[in-house]
Amino acid sequence: MQVDVIPCINEARSNDFIHKTVIVVDVLRATSSVITALANGCAGVIPVETVGQARNLKVEGDLLGGERFCEKISGFDFGNSPIEYHQAKIDGKRIIMTTTNGIRAIQKSHKATNILAGALINAFSCAMVAKALKKDIIIICAGTQDQFSLEDGLGAGLIIDELINNSSDTVFELNDFGTAMHSSYIQFKDHIQEAIMNCTNGKRLRKLGFEDDIQLCTHVNLYTLVPILRNDVLIPYEVLKS
Amino acid sequence: MQVDVIPCINEARSNDFIHKTVIVVDVLRATSSVITALANGCAGVIPVETVGQARNLKVEGDLLGGERFCEKISGFDFGNSPIEYHQAKIDGKRIIMTTTNGIRAIQKSHKATNILAGALINAFSCAMVAKALKKDIIIICAGTQDQFSLEDGLGAGLIIDELINNSSDTVFELNDFGTAMHSSYIQFKDHIQEAIMNCTNGKRLRKLGFEDDIQLCTHVNLYTLVPILRNDVLIPYEVLKS
Repeated sequence: MQVDVIPCINEARSNDFIHKTVIVVDVLRATSSVITALANGCAGVIPVETVGQARNLKVEGDLLGGERFCEKISGFDFGNSPIEYHQAKIDGKRIIMTTTNGIRAIQKSHKATNILAGALINAFSCAMVAKALKKDIIIICAGTQDQFSLEDGLGAGLIIDELINNSSDTVFELNDFGTAMHSSYIQFKDHIQEAIMNCTNGKRLRKLGFEDDIQLCTHVNLYTLVPILRNDVLIPYEVLKS
Repeated sequence: MQVDVIPCINEARSNDFIHKTVIVVDVLRATSSVITALANGCAGVIPVETVGQARNLKVEGDLLGGERFCEKISGFDFGNSPIEYHQAKIDGKRIIMTTTNGIRAIQKSHKATNILAGALINAFSCAMVAKALKKDIIIICAGTQDQFSLEDGLGAGLIIDELINNSSDTVFELNDFGTAMHSSYIQFKDHIQEAIMNCTNGKRLRKLGFEDDIQLCTHVNLYTLVPILRNDVLIPYEVLKS
């Protein structure tokens, strides 16, 4: 099974996604937020590109989530902090979400057969679902403003590590960037949180007061939930199966 | 001192290079060939983008070198194999060189204050020259057809390692991609040659019969020579100083 990792969204060519399973990784914080919301009972997350689209799609009972420049959008119910997505507020509701990088990467992957949301907090389960889907895998590091972000590379590296360590029956061929990210993850695996606290987005978010988010987002395999896109809505893979 | 690493040429924005020292890394094989040629007595390497430019620039006594699709260009004196550049053939002569990725990266860096050619074979000296030039550093991984190549990432990682380990007087700030490449290098440092033999370009070159090139190109710090671009010609930094 081929596993390619792409360093940031603008490196992604949508035709390469045909017949593939794409895993979008935006550790800080979009995919971590989507996973947390669905794990806390949200009925589905609808990823949209613009603030206008989010407002237009909203019907009675829906909630709006998202950020621009790391901050909550005016009039929205939530920003992009996973710790905001508590059960009491979102149980059974749909969230329409727009973020600068992660959600844009999901949009750009529309030609893929399957689109999953991955992060450090669901890496093992994400790897197992991707493998079960039996297509070659492309992991997109969402990055930040068209630049590579370390935390997404480490997320990709961990997903690859979970694939390799839990699949004695499958051989995984990595592209060069995948090999680099896997080796970088192994180098950092015993101090992932420290590494991410000190990378570009880690520093930026700490300055803005979001240190708790980083702590949550670096909690490896906290959840078994894997969001998958079906009919333009991210829902738990488990729901799809049942 | 800021050290940024860029994953491949098409990620490079030429305006970002102003007032910087750029190190172009194309381990397999352009910058390894330039270093080898100059270390073997070549008077200077003139990097040009096209085969036509190379032929037009040539005057009596000049030699032509370069590749397209890994193979020597018809009518040229040399391909892109560092092992071709022996002293007997090139001593005192200029070589006009065109390659698909490495030389194009040098061309794209023209707004930089200094442009150096780096590789595994001159990493220590390249790091020391870059530091001595007292400008922020950008390391461009040349890559292959606009994709990241592992060997260039490991070259960048080694140059960063040499900077950090040999500069107690300077603090180096890395961008996220630089941090990832440095950690990947540390993970692979005890089996660099094996890693590169098995990466995409390593496999491709071995298939074409260029295994000897890979052995030479992965010989860490074989040379102390550092090519620097002056008046559109790559010459040894030592010559410039004297």
